[in-house]
Amino acid sequence: MPHQKLPTATSVQKVINNLKKSDGIIYLKGQVLHERDDTDVELPFRQESNFFYMTGVNEADFHVVVSLSSGNITLIAPDIVEDHVMWMGLPDTPEQLKNKYDVHEVVYASQLEQVLQKENPEKIYTLSICDVTAIPKNLQSKVDKDSLQPAIYDARLYKAQWEVELMREINKISSDAHIKLMKEAKAGLSEQQLHALFVYETARKGAFFQSYNPIVAAGVNAATLHYGKNNGGISKDQLVLIDAGAELNCYASDITRTFPAGGKFSKEQREIYEIVLEMQKKCFELCKPGVDWEDIHRLALRVACEGLVKIGILNGDVEELLSKHIPACLFPHGLGHSIGIDVHDVGGYAPGVQRVDEPGIRNLRMRRKLEAGMAVTVEPGIYFCDYIIDPLLKDSATSKYFDLEKLNHYKKVGGVRIEDDIVITESGFDNLTTVPKEVQEIEALMA
Amino acid sequence: MPHQKLPTATSVQKVINNLKKSDGIIYLKGQVLHERDDTDVELPFRQESNFFYMTGVNEADFHVVVSLSSGNITLIAPDIVEDHVMWMGLPDTPEQLKNKYDVHEVVYASQLEQVLQKENPEKIYTLSICDVTAIPKNLQSKVDKDSLQPAIYDARLYKAQWEVELMREINKISSDAHIKLMKEAKAGLSEQQLHALFVYETARKGAFFQSYNPIVAAGVNAATLHYGKNNGGISKDQLVLIDAGAELNCYASDITRTFPAGGKFSKEQREIYEIVLEMQKKCFELCKPGVDWEDIHRLALRVACEGLVKIGILNGDVEELLSKHIPACLFPHGLGHSIGIDVHDVGGYAPGVQRVDEPGIRNLRMRRKLEAGMAVTVEPGIYFCDYIIDPLLKDSATSKYFDLEKLNHYKKVGGVRIEDDIVITESGFDNLTTVPKEVQEIEALMA
Repeated sequence: MPHQKLPTATSVQKVINNLKKSDGIIYLKGQVLHERDDTDVELPFRQESNFFYMTGVNEADFHVVVSLSSGNITLIAPDIVEDHVMWMGLPDTPEQLKNKYDVHEVVYASQLEQVLQKENPEKIYTLSICDVTAIPKNLQSKVDKDSLQPAIYDARLYKAQWEVELMREINKISSDAHIKLMKEAKAGLSEQQLHALFVYETARKGAFFQSYNPIVAAGVNAATLHYGKNNGGISKDQLVLIDAGAELNCYASDITRTFPAGGKFSKEQREIYEIVLEMQKKCFELCKPGVDWEDIHRLALRVACEGLVKIGILNGDVEELLSKHIPACLFPHGLGHSIGIDVHDVGGYAPGVQRVDEPGIRNLRMRRKLEAGMAVTVEPGIYFCDYIIDPLLKDSATSKYFDLEKLNHYKKVGGVRIEDDIVITESGFDNLTTVPKEVQEIEALMA
Repeated sequence: MPHQKLPTATSVQKVINNLKKSDGIIYLKGQVLHERDDTDVELPFRQESNFFYMTGVNEADFHVVVSLSSGNITLIAPDIVEDHVMWMGLPDTPEQLKNKYDVHEVVYASQLEQVLQKENPEKIYTLSICDVTAIPKNLQSKVDKDSLQPAIYDARLYKAQWEVELMREINKISSDAHIKLMKEAKAGLSEQQLHALFVYETARKGAFFQSYNPIVAAGVNAATLHYGKNNGGISKDQLVLIDAGAELNCYASDITRTFPAGGKFSKEQREIYEIVLEMQKKCFELCKPGVDWEDIHRLALRVACEGLVKIGILNGDVEELLSKHIPACLFPHGLGHSIGIDVHDVGGYAPGVQRVDEPGIRNLRMRRKLEAGMAVTVEPGIYFCDYIIDPLLKDSATSKYFDLEKLNHYKKVGGVRIEDDIVITESGFDNLTTVPKEVQEIEALMA
């Protein structure tokens, strides 16, 4: 990827506004290079997310100092080490770095102490994870590790349009990779081969990092929510669940599709798939400013319940089933989460907000009213996981709600999840994910 | 990859023999899962190398206890956490683990204290990098963090035949990927695309980890020894240097090939390439038990010097040029290194042996007599790196050895390296790398 200069000074300004302090500085140290254990094997470098948000720098060993009074952003580059140059080549000059990043000044690390002493700040706002050993002794007492985090998190929660466009770009790359996998799956590829193909299809376009370890799960493997072995075979009569998304410029994508390995849904696969698709569609109708995220999760549960009653896996009145939390054993995770520089992005719970302590919804990673600029995943699913369902079958108070024969008949479906990344707009939402998901679209694509 | 049971108990026995203690235990804790910074993004799991050598376990959160008196190997598996099972599925039972790994007993972590108290060891031999917090207080004074490391390193240095076969397997996978890259390069792929293709070609065969970050360097980029940006374009008239090798079952491969992007070497490219190939061939003649590795490095320098004098880049008497360390500015790294579970494997320098403090050879990662069972890379190269050459041109005592016009004429070649992985046998060596390297072979492959 050619370097893309990002307008991160606008992010810094949002953080300054949230912090509401007119004096002092913000100081952050970026991630350093790590080696594996006591070897010299360098681990792939990925910038710490908050540092990236404030600077756009995805290189090791930088620092940043922001003056709260002037708004001046000073980037601190690592000193040039002669021996290093022989192996790694000449680094960018300060002038080149100034063109590359949205900062006012660039100095070398050897000048950091001087920069800090000159600022002589009232307070040094930083994060609890930040290494502050570079701050001189006489200023250590000024360090505040608490105030900055909520200011950054609240800024990161609301995406600027340029961030949305980056996320659209990586969603397109990851979406195209999902489409490629659907097309190639019929050739008899294994889980491992599909996993490798997804990584390739994204990396060759410059997205060398996955936002998370991909899940490639065929048949009953998909009933394990975070299945990550990805080492099984795939037979034509199985559904394949792919939960994978790469990141670009440190911005994440997170996409799930489920499709029949042989190109045609069986009756049972299609029935479960259509329920999940309906869950997502109904939830989308509520995705707009002012709606509580947990209400949308509850709607997904209701649609799942109605569908499962209709095909006969669950018995009884929908309200009663919901009040007894029965559908949560088939949809045991949250509907979705904030997404941004981290796949499970910051800000899902405002400070002080607690999780709802009920089955399923206790796994919801966000609980707040939707607002314009929030990016979230919408990822309903239905899974036949014995480990989760069995306790309810063993309890006579809950077993009566299940048609055991039907349930066992559908177990081979394994699991279905459909997941898109959306951004809330003033009037509704903008769906960044472009992989087809209608039954006929998938079957046409794979034909 | 289906799981392959490795005969690691033979490795444990080698370590016990080297340690020469009849009482006490060996205790190691394996690597745990790490998350990125303060996020919940799990980093890809890779076992700590010494733990892998002793157990073959490439899963997180295991420990191992070896009784030195009985030779009994007890593997300690993580306790089952109910909530974890919902997300990750049921882990292997102790019985399954006993079939999977070459150990005598398997217990859960909750039983570790009991195992240790029952052993009531005189000494607990472990490594300085090992987390020993699981050792109960009353036994902490028994911990010895010094004696074990040389015993393990000396065992790891000499590969058993089954280790050689694993290294042959991953060399085949990486070699085939190199061949694929040569074949595809003519299509106009960029450095990034070739990088992604190498990762794909190895991952789809189950080798999801690279032994190190690949180097894909076109033209003058190859003059930077550890170039790793891999983000440039490639033109048909450039040489492309690919230094890449994947690992399988934690065993590394490390292979370099240099080829013309357009499929045909230019005159200058071919001349430099042929010198490097000759360096490797001459070195191979010395690769057998009893030969000092540094002597083979010096032979490579001599062959480079002769070749560079012959084409006229260097002027003067070969002995004089060598005594003044002139060729080292064009071959500035070591000839090769031990390779095994780490790409730069342990044991290159026996305890107490120092590096030779001369240009080039000071970067040699191994200095000892070759012996049967040692696995090493043989990787001569010639590079036109201004940063390294310029100081010699500016000094009148050394500038006289260079023909400036010739030197400048050849600079566009960038850099050439040819690297194979070999194992020393009783009579010579076994070359594990199977990528063609003769000029006519490469041109035929790319035709």
